Amino acid sequence: MIATALKHEVKDLSLAPQGKQRIEWAGREMPVLRQIRDRFAAEKPLAGIRVVACCHITTETAHLAIAIKAAGADAILIASNPLSTQDDVAASLVVDYGIPVFAFRGEDEATYKRHVQTALDHHPNIIVDDGCDVVATMVQERQDQLSELIGTTEETTTGIVRLQAMFKAGVLTFPAVNVNDADTKHFFDNRYGTGQSTLDGIIRATNILLAGKTIVVAGYGWCGKGTAMRARGLGANVIVTEIDPTKAIEAVMDGFSVMTMEKAAAVGDIFITVTGNKHVIRGEHFDVMKDGAIVCNSGHFDIEIDLKALASKSTGVSTVRNFTEEYKLNNGKSVIVIGEGRLVNLAAAEGHPSAVMDMSFANQAMACEYLVKNKGELTPGIHSIPVHVDKEIARMKLEAMGIQIDSLNADQIDYANSWTSGT
Amino acid sequence: MIATALKHEVKDLSLAPQGKQRIEWAGREMPVLRQIRDRFAAEKPLAGIRVVACCHITTETAHLAIAIKAAGADAILIASNPLSTQDDVAASLVVDYGIPVFAFRGEDEATYKRHVQTALDHHPNIIVDDGCDVVATMVQERQDQLSELIGTTEETTTGIVRLQAMFKAGVLTFPAVNVNDADTKHFFDNRYGTGQSTLDGIIRATNILLAGKTIVVAGYGWCGKGTAMRARGLGANVIVTEIDPTKAIEAVMDGFSVMTMEKAAAVGDIFITVTGNKHVIRGEHFDVMKDGAIVCNSGHFDIEIDLKALASKSTGVSTVRNFTEEYKLNNGKSVIVIGEGRLVNLAAAEGHPSAVMDMSFANQAMACEYLVKNKGELTPGIHSIPVHVDKEIARMKLEAMGIQIDSLNADQIDYANSWTSGT
Amino acid sequence: MIATALKHEVKDLSLAPQGKQRIEWAGREMPVLRQIRDRFAAEKPLAGIRVVACCHITTETAHLAIAIKAAGADAILIASNPLSTQDDVAASLVVDYGIPVFAFRGEDEATYKRHVQTALDHHPNIIVDDGCDVVATMVQERQDQLSELIGTTEETTTGIVRLQAMFKAGVLTFPAVNVNDADTKHFFDNRYGTGQSTLDGIIRATNILLAGKTIVVAGYGWCGKGTAMRARGLGANVIVTEIDPTKAIEAVMDGFSVMTMEKAAAVGDIFITVTGNKHVIRGEHFDVMKDGAIVCNSGHFDIEIDLKALASKSTGVSTVRNFTEEYKLNNGKSVIVIGEGRLVNLAAAEGHPSAVMDMSFANQAMACEYLVKNKGELTPGIHSIPVHVDKEIARMKLEAMGIQIDSLNADQIDYANSWTSGT
Amino acid sequence: MIATALKHEVKDLSLAPQGKQRIEWAGREMPVLRQIRDRFAAEKPLAGIRVVACCHITTETAHLAIAIKAAGADAILIASNPLSTQDDVAASLVVDYGIPVFAFRGEDEATYKRHVQTALDHHPNIIVDDGCDVVATMVQERQDQLSELIGTTEETTTGIVRLQAMFKAGVLTFPAVNVNDADTKHFFDNRYGTGQSTLDGIIRATNILLAGKTIVVAGYGWCGKGTAMRARGLGANVIVTEIDPTKAIEAVMDGFSVMTMEKAAAVGDIFITVTGNKHVIRGEHFDVMKDGAIVCNSGHFDIEIDLKALASKSTGVSTVRNFTEEYKLNNGKSVIVIGEGRLVNLAAAEGHPSAVMDMSFANQAMACEYLVKNKGELTPGIHSIPVHVDKEIARMKLEAMGIQIDSLNADQIDYANSWTSGT
Repeated sequence: MIATALKHEVKDLSLAPQGKQRIEWAGREMPVLRQIRDRFAAEKPLAGIRVVACCHITTETAHLAIAIKAAGADAILIASNPLSTQDDVAASLVVDYGIPVFAFRGEDEATYKRHVQTALDHHPNIIVDDGCDVVATMVQERQDQLSELIGTTEETTTGIVRLQAMFKAGVLTFPAVNVNDADTKHFFDNRYGTGQSTLDGIIRATNILLAGKTIVVAGYGWCGKGTAMRARGLGANVIVTEIDPTKAIEAVMDGFSVMTMEKAAAVGDIFITVTGNKHVIRGEHFDVMKDGAIVCNSGHFDIEIDLKALASKSTGVSTVRNFTEEYKLNNGKSVIVIGEGRLVNLAAAEGHPSAVMDMSFANQAMACEYLVKNKGELTPGIHSIPVHVDKEIARMKLEAMGIQIDSLNADQIDYANSWTSGT
Repeated sequence: MIATALKHEVKDLSLAPQGKQRIEWAGREMPVLRQIRDRFAAEKPLAGIRVVACCHITTETAHLAIAIKAAGADAILIASNPLSTQDDVAASLVVDYGIPVFAFRGEDEATYKRHVQTALDHHPNIIVDDGCDVVATMVQERQDQLSELIGTTEETTTGIVRLQAMFKAGVLTFPAVNVNDADTKHFFDNRYGTGQSTLDGIIRATNILLAGKTIVVAGYGWCGKGTAMRARGLGANVIVTEIDPTKAIEAVMDGFSVMTMEKAAAVGDIFITVTGNKHVIRGEHFDVMKDGAIVCNSGHFDIEIDLKALASKSTGVSTVRNFTEEYKLNNGKSVIVIGEGRLVNLAAAEGHPSAVMDMSFANQAMACEYLVKNKGELTPGIHSIPVHVDKEIARMKLEAMGIQIDSLNADQIDYANSWTSGT
Repeated sequence: MIATALKHEVKDLSLAPQGKQRIEWAGREMPVLRQIRDRFAAEKPLAGIRVVACCHITTETAHLAIAIKAAGADAILIASNPLSTQDDVAASLVVDYGIPVFAFRGEDEATYKRHVQTALDHHPNIIVDDGCDVVATMVQERQDQLSELIGTTEETTTGIVRLQAMFKAGVLTFPAVNVNDADTKHFFDNRYGTGQSTLDGIIRATNILLAGKTIVVAGYGWCGKGTAMRARGLGANVIVTEIDPTKAIEAVMDGFSVMTMEKAAAVGDIFITVTGNKHVIRGEHFDVMKDGAIVCNSGHFDIEIDLKALASKSTGVSTVRNFTEEYKLNNGKSVIVIGEGRLVNLAAAEGHPSAVMDMSFANQAMACEYLVKNKGELTPGIHSIPVHVDKEIARMKLEAMGIQIDSLNADQIDYANSWTSGT
Repeated sequence: MIATALKHEVKDLSLAPQGKQRIEWAGREMPVLRQIRDRFAAEKPLAGIRVVACCHITTETAHLAIAIKAAGADAILIASNPLSTQDDVAASLVVDYGIPVFAFRGEDEATYKRHVQTALDHHPNIIVDDGCDVVATMVQERQDQLSELIGTTEETTTGIVRLQAMFKAGVLTFPAVNVNDADTKHFFDNRYGTGQSTLDGIIRATNILLAGKTIVVAGYGWCGKGTAMRARGLGANVIVTEIDPTKAIEAVMDGFSVMTMEKAAAVGDIFITVTGNKHVIRGEHFDVMKDGAIVCNSGHFDIEIDLKALASKSTGVSTVRNFTEEYKLNNGKSVIVIGEGRLVNLAAAEGHPSAVMDMSFANQAMACEYLVKNKGELTPGIHSIPVHVDKEIARMKLEAMGIQIDSLNADQIDYANSWTSGT
């Protein structure tokens, strides 16, 4: 048995009051998770379950942690990204809500890895993961603990890709719930959340006018679609790059210019990577960029931009605004990098708005309950969120927004189930 | 063995020259189907196969029929909708391309049903269906011919819903390829094709300004998304109605007003149904509409608007423009109906533009080849188009458009397949 | 005194019933002009005034003519463009409304000029002009009639440019009312009217999908803005060309690509000219266009595309769809021209929708009344529509649309008139 | 003669390094003003002229001040708004650029008024004003100094309205240049600048998702158009309120809902005032708002929202985020106010992006030169920026953006000047 006294490793506990204020503010936009938390508090579906949540430590994550704790779980939180922790939120979770947090903004890679070990020392029954680092580490270094694991939930595209690779490699020996797959997650969080917050991050970091700028969006998945849509909505001329022909034509039909990064590199003013793959912008691209081109990333990991290649071509780096650095290139031009190539919406802004995280985290919370309720029933491998859970979350959200929709009458239900009536 | 001499039932063979000109024009926007036809002509993958194609008889369908014939098939064509036949195209297919066609614009229901029987008399090995009428009739009335059937392909959402109902009912004893499910079909045809052509139909029928009008779109599936997007693009204020909570929130997040049809009915200027279900607009809605409200349908069947209820509330009906009728209601107001509630883009315009049908029909053609190549291998039930076929169609389309996209380098392929590298 | 028995020169009087139906349909969207006509019928402000109206003979123009006649005028109509006459409307005006019309679709230039002479033979007191041809001819050839002229009204940008040139040249010896300048005219007609109807014309002529096409709009005045906005709204990737630096940056800030026609010519799929100047697309541009490029004009005169240069580079011309011709170039490629380079929205569609012409023609009607009421008071030169007339038209329109807006309260009126209260 | 030793009243001179860094960053987006500054430095057009500039003290204003100083002027700066001063910029102007500044963020009204007096004590020859406070005070309290005044330049709509009222009242006895009237000012600054920065301010203050929210924009002038366009671009459902019927129909035709504030108040989630008038949102509106409604202002003065009325209906006010306060109403609901009803883009964000201020301040700088060059020539009253200056600024901007546009050839110039050639 593991005793978790209230340990923590946060920047400054005195930031708690500001954190609490911001957490409460975010809660106003999270009515679905609030309802779930209230039910969890009454039903205690996670009683006695040890949960590790590896997430961006934001005001929204705070509400997920509070809901999981309300459900009776013994939960601890670590950061899923060195730059995304909001230190006031971390402080408030410890001080005001009694939840152990191991995270501070700007932690180095060694600290990050140490926190993953701390998380595993908690002997989790459930891992709420975000990018699959905790799960991957457990599989590699803590096979002896795998028997304690009921399952894991994962909410990023990146994490799902890793889980699929693990499944192919035969090392995924427990159920993983694909939260990202829920319609109420990826339709909203990846598209509207990433869309708004990515542009928000760029604007806060640079304060430049987007109208009239040529913005290159690498990747036209849900995150890329949202980013391209909002970039256009702010007046930019948007270029999309892709490797998938279907997504490429979709971008064309949506009215965007589609070309290779090789060509886009020479004409873009701002570059945003949201592909989930590495080195999407690399040496050959920096070579041809315009002087003052701005580069940032909104994909999960900081590997989409090859910053080593950029550094190797540079004579120096200097900070020009908060979170914003200028690389002076050997060719006389300069390239501006925001947030060290990490998630720009978390590095330079506040991450996804609460209203979308409400549904994403409602899925995370419901996925934990689902794992516990079906303990021993689910096969090893990746499972979708059940459709009825997904629809229920949507229904709760609409209700909270005060929006009423139609329902089928008996006649229409008959029609939908019939195949004999035709033209 | 069935001998098909060149029989036909078309309106007027003298229309062939105009039809040929229009068919050739459409071909310019159909480079993918052209490439497939050229390969089919060389490889003859459908040699000796009897094919029945039940489609809207348009310039684009002409190219599908020509490709199927080029593949060596013994093919005949019937109309999938009484109002959608372009008589000049039907004439040209018979005269210039030697393909039997049984269809004319304005055929009555009895004729339509007789043509379905003619189609079944052809003893099809493959049915290329559009709404599932031929397949449903065969299952109900020609069980003896089922043994001759290799399989069927279906391209509408409506048809797929019927096939699913048949599968549940245990009567789908042969493979059906879900062409609608292909990304290169529903992403493009349903969204961009229906979107543009629906608004085109309304404008041709009424010549009214859409800017500033309140347009109510019933249904936010792919067709509804396309229609709502284009209605907004033309300056309308768009209201969406839905029965599915996830789609409803998606519409909200896309910036549309979402409400029940009961409320929308009182404020809309123009109503478009694209739900796939029946009586989406019915008596109670007509009662509260504004004087002069315009109502039309862009769903597959003409059952979405309850015209009988409208007629029962009316003192008379008169034609006010081509394809456009005014119902004078007992309450003193009037309601305008376009195209008798049939597909407005085919009734009042020319159906989907060639560029999208290029991909949809490329899928149909490839699905026929797939059924023949895998004869006896596919289980009864509904099968997706193989992903590699779908991507190949997208690739051909991009190439024809002269657009180049990126591809993964070795490093990136490794990364995509790895799960051990993380933050 | 000139006696105008009901003379006319229209195509076919038997078309009158269809024309009447269409005129009545258009009237539903023209509530402002209807109110003005009702007042004119009661007050007869143009009693005994001879009016020549040179306009596109459409269903909307019919309502202007009817209003002018109701005001007591002795009015005749001629066409302002050889391809824009709707023959059924012309017939109905003669048969059903007793208004002499001299116009038929496809009249040659000699006939067009003869009709201008017929118009001048009517000895007009007021000329309602559209492009300034009647006025320019009178100034050049009928100076003796100038004393009979109270004034003229002009509604096109092109016509105003000509009037300004006449004023500079010292030959504008009478008042001209700049109807184009009214906010309720150019904001709506030029932008929303031209925008929708230009794209409508292209779609009707070609039936091609606009999504994913690169559309080049030459000119970013009000007409160009509307056209670019709607082209984007239909999914096109839009390039703008301009000669004015301010308009060019405006287009950039609106997210469009801006470049020279020289560069745009090589990448566009569809070209639309709306500049008011000549040969905006000329030989050097045809040389570099893609095979199958589509070219059309939505500016007033057919001089924006240099068709002579195109013909001189071609081996032949053939009709590929109604109103659509293919020029086979010496370089092996082809260029498609819609509507012979004349106004595409009138050549291939039905001109501006009634809802915008309602306000434009309300201005024309009010301008005629204004000229008569102020006979002898207005200096020679170009006069704006009085602001209160402009606002009154807007107010009537809103009321007819059932839209209520705010008004200033006493406190706010004081504030607006004060300069002493500040921060 | 007035000796201006380097006096100042700023918050903290030690902030200068950060201010300098930010000023330099902004300069990258201000190539037009940079060119003008370089020319001014060479030509010294303002040698010996005493200039008072009353502006928002931002990084962009810094460049205007630097250019004016480079021109040889003896200039001092005061803040035009208590909440808009960036203290680091103020410090750097004093320390690094030797320009006296009297401004700090959060100064109270008495301090603000004292600074206006300080400005007048400088005995300005030219006043660069922003809202007309310095000019109005001079006219009311320093008539003796009017003879020293060459003229004033004004860049806000609000200031122009006050100058017009002064002109009507007969107290505008000197020339005022209407910088706001320049196309390169109001088309860009008011529309694209206010548009982006207003939404930016709301997002920074609240971090809420705009997609799916109902946003009410009061006023559809250039600022309102920009705000509504960007709100829609971020996924909001936008309602517009207006008092002008022409602008109201324009909003309708742009696809927005238009209604009275009385009705909008009950359905909006977020309210933005940009009217230039007072108490646009007042007691009766707060009464019917939804719980948690967010209210802010982007018009020049903080009088558009009646905060006194709100306070009188409230039981308490508390800060819920930086710059964001919650009023608890007697009716049990709450209303959120951002930035105390002052300009939200300056209170909660960083004001207009540099790229638009580049052109606005280029106009201000050129207007100062114009006043000096034409000293004694300009009549008392309001003068527009000369068109050639306006176009020259646009031309410099395009050039700096690397964009090339067309120019008329000889043939086209002839055509534009001719009136005899027609159809």
